[in-house]
Parts: sequence; C-alpha cells; structure tokens
Amino acid sequence: MYYSKLFGKTSKSVSADEESINAQYLIRGGFVNKQMAGVYNYLPLGLRVLNKIQNIIREEMTAIGGDEILMPTLTQEESYKTTGRDTMDVLFHTEGPSGAKYVLNPTHEEVVTPLVQKYTFSYNDLPLAVFQIQNKYRNEPRAKSGILRGREFNMKDLYSFHANEESLNEFYEVAQKAYHKVYARLGLGDLTILTYASGGAFSRYSHEFQTLCDVGEDTVYLCEKCRIGINKEIIQDQTSCPQCGNVDLVEKKGIEVGNIFKLGTRFTDAFGFKFLDASGKEQAIPMGCYGIGPSRVMGTLVEVFHDDKGMVWPESVAPFKYHLVALGKEEETYAEAEKIYKNLTSAGAEVLFDDRRDVTAGVKFADADLIGLPIRLVVSKKTLAENSVEWKGRADAEAKLVKISDLI
Amino acid sequence: MYYSKLFGKTSKSVSADEESINAQYLIRGGFVNKQMAGVYNYLPLGLRVLNKIQNIIREEMTAIGGDEILMPTLTQEESYKTTGRDTMDVLFHTEGPSGAKYVLNPTHEEVVTPLVQKYTFSYNDLPLAVFQIQNKYRNEPRAKSGILRGREFNMKDLYSFHANEESLNEFYEVAQKAYHKVYARLGLGDLTILTYASGGAFSRYSHEFQTLCDVGEDTVYLCEKCRIGINKEIIQDQTSCPQCGNVDLVEKKGIEVGNIFKLGTRFTDAFGFKFLDASGKEQAIPMGCYGIGPSRVMGTLVEVFHDDKGMVWPESVAPFKYHLVALGKEEETYAEAEKIYKNLTSAGAEVLFDDRRDVTAGVKFADADLIGLPIRLVVSKKTLAENSVEWKGRADAEAKLVKISDLI
Repeated sequence: MYYSKLFGKTSKSVSADEESINAQYLIRGGFVNKQMAGVYNYLPLGLRVLNKIQNIIREEMTAIGGDEILMPTLTQEESYKTTGRDTMDVLFHTEGPSGAKYVLNPTHEEVVTPLVQKYTFSYNDLPLAVFQIQNKYRNEPRAKSGILRGREFNMKDLYSFHANEESLNEFYEVAQKAYHKVYARLGLGDLTILTYASGGAFSRYSHEFQTLCDVGEDTVYLCEKCRIGINKEIIQDQTSCPQCGNVDLVEKKGIEVGNIFKLGTRFTDAFGFKFLDASGKEQAIPMGCYGIGPSRVMGTLVEVFHDDKGMVWPESVAPFKYHLVALGKEEETYAEAEKIYKNLTSAGAEVLFDDRRDVTAGVKFADADLIGLPIRLVVSKKTLAENSVEWKGRADAEAKLVKISDLI
Repeated sequence: MYYSKLFGKTSKSVSADEESINAQYLIRGGFVNKQMAGVYNYLPLGLRVLNKIQNIIREEMTAIGGDEILMPTLTQEESYKTTGRDTMDVLFHTEGPSGAKYVLNPTHEEVVTPLVQKYTFSYNDLPLAVFQIQNKYRNEPRAKSGILRGREFNMKDLYSFHANEESLNEFYEVAQKAYHKVYARLGLGDLTILTYASGGAFSRYSHEFQTLCDVGEDTVYLCEKCRIGINKEIIQDQTSCPQCGNVDLVEKKGIEVGNIFKLGTRFTDAFGFKFLDASGKEQAIPMGCYGIGPSRVMGTLVEVFHDDKGMVWPESVAPFKYHLVALGKEEETYAEAEKIYKNLTSAGAEVLFDDRRDVTAGVKFADADLIGLPIRLVVSKKTLAENSVEWKGRADAEAKLVKISDLI
C-alpha cells in the first residue's frame, strides 16, 4: 500500500476532549476517526488491525467447534420482556412500522436462545456452540475511554448449549484454554490473567480475562505465583487465590478484555427451551456465553504497546509488517524503493510504502513511529550506495544495514 | 465441514407468510432464519455465501483504488438536518444519553462526506474513493421479499470525491466496468444489464444494474442488441436505446442489484466541503456513490438459480464446492468417505460431508439438491466396489463414476 494513496492521515494533535491514550494515538495515527462519543469510524489502517484481531479470534473459536453465524442488530423488544431484561439501562430503543418496538441488541442471548431452540430437536444435537463477530449497542452514560468503551462496538460472542452441567463445565474449560491462546497470539499473553468475578444465580463465579495495565478501570488482586486474579467486586468473599490458597495478593489495575460466564438455564428456561432425554423426559439446557470485544482489544493493545512516539504493534495484528520509507529528492531513490516494495509485496510481505516526495525525512520518521509497524526499512542515496536498506525494529534503539539481496 | 455438526438444518416447509422464493429456499436449506419481517439471522451456510459475495465485491472495489473503511450505524440526527434528509420516511431513530438524537444510517453520505472532508487538505488528495461493507437500516413499510428488501441489510457502498466533473465522469466509467466484473464473477453477468434510471439535480441519469428475472419489482425496457435497459420511471423521457437509438425495446422485469449515481455537489456543498485549487481559488467537490447489496445479491442468486428441488449455486459463491454423501449402513463406507473427505480437504477443496448415519439415502439426496452445491459426490458400497465415487453436477441430469484416485 502506498502511503500517499492511503485514506487517513496522521495528525500532530487531537481535540482536547480525548482523554484516553488509545483514542489519542489511534486518531493521531489515522487508524480511527471519532463520529461522536463512543462511536468511531475505522479508517483503512484501523480496519486492518480490527480484521486481524477478529481473524485470530475466529480461528480459535472455530478450532473449539464453534460454528460462525451472524445475528441482527434489530430485535423485537418483546424478546427482552420474555427474559425480563427490557428495562436494562443500556438498551437503545427504536420503532418499526406501525410503532412496532425494537431494541438494538447490547448482547444476543435473546436472539441466540430461540434461534438455537429452533434447530435443536433432540439430545443428539447437544452440545452445540455458535458464535458471531458483530456490533453491539449500549447506551453507556459515559463513553470516555476511546474504543475501550463504546456505545457502538465490535464483539465476538459465542454461546454454548448443553444436555447437562458436566458438558457445560467441560466446554467452559475448553473455551478458557482457547481464550488464553487468543491472548497469546494477540501479544497479550503475559499480561492477561484469568480473573474470578461475580457469577450469577447459577454459578459461584464467572471469569474475566484482565490485561494488567495502569489505566484499567478494574481493580484485581493478583496471585503472582499462579497468575490468577480476583476482581475487587468479590474480594470480600474470595480472599485467597482459588488455585493455591495464597493470601499474599497484589492489587493491580486491569482492562477486561474478555469474559466467560455460565448462564445456567436462565435464558433457556425463559424461552421454554428444553429437550427430551433418551428416556423421553424433559430436561433443562444449561448455557454458557463467551465474549471478547475486538475493538476493545485493539484499544487495549494501544494502551499496553506504545511509547512517547506512538504505537508499537505486535506483528500478529500490525496493519502491515514493514514501513518502507524512501528519503531524499532523487527520483532514482524512489525507483529503487519501488522495486523493493514490489519484490517484498510479491513475496507475500505486507508493506506500507511511504512514497511521499513533499515531506521531510523528519516527518516520515515521526509518522513511522506514530503508526508503529514492527519494522521500518529506510531507502536513501546513502543506503543504496551500499546496496542496502536500513532496518530498524519499532522497539529497537539501533538500526542496522541489510543488503537488499538478503531482504527478499 | 461435517453436516452432522453444522448448525442449521433443512426443513420441508416454511411458514405460510414467506412469499418469496429466496426466503423459502434459504430458510428451508438452513441458510438463514427469519428474526422478524425484513430482519434475518445468517446461519453458517448462509454466512459463507454472504462472505464470498462480499469478498468478490471487495476485490473489485480495491482493484479500482477504493480504500476500505468501516463507518458506524449510529449517527447524530443533526448530520441529516444539515443535508435536509432528517425527514426521510425510512429513518430509524433512537436516543442516546440525555436525549441526544441518533439515526441508524440508511446510507452513509452524511457520515462519509464530513469524514473525507477531515482528511482532504488540497487538490493533491483528490480524486479519492472509499468504501465499506456494512449493514444499513431502513424502516421499509413492506418487507415481504425475503432478503431482497430488508429493514436491516448488508451493503457495499463506495463514495468517490473529485476535483472536477471530468474526474468524476472518468471514475464513474471505471466503476461501471468494475460492476460488470462483479456480476460476471457472481454468475449473473449474462442476466445483469446496465439500466438508465432517473438522475438528480446534477446529472440526467443514474444507472442501475438490473438482473432480469420474472419476480423483479422493477420494469425495464431492454435493447436486446446493446443489452442496455431503460427503467420504466424514465421511459417517457428516454424512448430509445441511449447507445444505438433502437426504439424496438422489450419490456422485462428486473431486480436492482446495484446502482451508481453522480451526486454532484449536493452533499459536499451541504457540509461546506470545498478545496483550494492551484491558484488558491475555492472549488466545489463533485461526488459519486456506488452501491451493491451483498444480501440482496444473495437473494437474487436464489431467485435466478434454482429449480423445483432447491438452489443451484454458482461455484464462485457456493458455500462449499462438493457435497460428499455417504450412503448405507456399513461403517466401512463411512470410513472410506472420511478418507476422501480428508484428502479433498487437505488438497484445499471445500467439502460439506453428509456423514449422517440415521437418515435415508432419499433424505440425503433431497438435502443435497435443496442446498444446491455445485458437485455431489456419492460414496456407497456399490461405488467403492469400483474404487469410485459417483459424481454429479447439481444442474446435470446424469451422474458418472469417477475413480477415487482421479478425484484428488
């Protein structure tokens, strides 16, 4: 991709009402644009990051047997009356023809439960797991954390349905492992800890995945030995590490980047979704839900991986791997850089090529640091004299010369 | 994919209020499920088709220089007041915190215009084209055509911005050619004709792409020589083929599967989006918009490509290429079919494997016809005796035996 042709530009500053680092850097880098508080446009660079995060999550959800579906945003308010959730504060309401009352789904239990019910005829169809990657809508009173807390935001939500509690427990463990894999691939593995949080009527605890980070809104108590956390909301009830009993816990701030929850039969019962067991007896269907917000993950990555010059994307989610920069006034330099760009691209590498003639080297370097791709390659008259490019990892202090012939 | 594990099942009938062929077959085949009138859930088979359609469109829009972005659903009602479109009947309205008035975007001119304005600093930045693939919301009074006309539906919308009219005209021609490529790749090339339709203040005509089909809602007058149509709405003003002057036009029904429109400066003017030319003079920015609805295309494909047994998907958008069916009671047959499945899949083929033990051959054949994948492969004791599978194209009358060794 030629930087000169890419839609979206870097800027030196953002409006003063952007408090969060993620919004500041993502806006300045040309990744997102704010439509209004809690609602963002994704520009090409930002959309590439979002898609990479989504694909990692998609692969891991498919690997544990999740079937991908796509549910709508608009749903009958009636479905929320069925579950008693029509009075939730965060619901956006709208009206269809003849005053029909609709809700913009803030989560999809009210859609997925009757949907799965429709296609489940016997215990042979269970267990079953479906997921989607779709937008959610929540009328948050405050939306000041950039893309960490949006009124419109992206979500992967998986739902599992089971013939009994053992089956739910078994799948819940499998999902937990898949979540750890996702965070490892996102570059957040070391910082993201399984955290015990409040459960519900059905189970004592739910689990969150908290990425330790000073700007996090949540407070967790960490067992440093087991890398397991306890959310402050339950620390009164659970004062020691649930795994090793350690009481010497360390208070930390975390960003909730995922949560998994045993819902029990709360929703299946509400919709009268039961199955007949082998003996013809009606049985309840316990259910689990498993959420990760790709847009929130993207914001978290910025909060965690940045320095004072800009973002430092992990390779797995960087919009491109290489930031190729051509310097100087000579057309020959740009022609050589163009060759390198084409060779790298043909070899399958993802390259952003800063081919601008009308800006200084300083501006190009500042933009490369702000955008934060893993590797910066500089081509100039000087490097070409050595048949080389200058190679610098975004987090490296020093650059080195690499022969062009070794690059491809 | 194992059919036994796929979420979504075929059914023999649908509720009587489904009038359209596309909804009937898509629901019966387990591709979509109706949430409410005009709002659908996409099940795994349907989502695969939708994604393939989207990817073909994405590739062709990228090929003409479109940069992919993602705009939100929620937008300030104020933006629609700016353009005078806040009174459109089809708008869904909702309220944010403190009664802030939001609209669910039915199209995105009110979002994309100020967005592009923000990143356009001079004539050097023009022309510029951005597109997205996103859901639209329109409060249609009637929504009875399945996924052809939804209240929530999927859309690819590209917008182009230009320094002058010549540039717009030039890009408009390029986009027109790209649209023809899209329909050709979707299998709709021969049936889809460029159709002149009413323009606006800025240009005499807009252009639709109409897929000729008896159930279409539109009436077009076709020049059979040029394969160009005139929408009935303008036939009073344009009584002959705009290309060859032929007046011997044939009345046809069509489904509008795309439209392209020169918007002129209607939206850029409303937002005060101008640029300074080389001489420092302020200039207006003409704009074009180019829409294709992937969900509508999917419905059109069903309307066009079906027989009395079910769908007949073109290979480019079929959810899988092969429908592998194992027959009989012998486990050995299923074990052999499993081997074939694994070999095909490892070779990169997309295979749906009907591995069900508990249904008859008749049910499996009926499901294969209903789902409509391009090639059905049958494995039975009889075919295995000849080291073969039975190969049948979905549209073929006859099956043939193919050696397993020749298959891979």
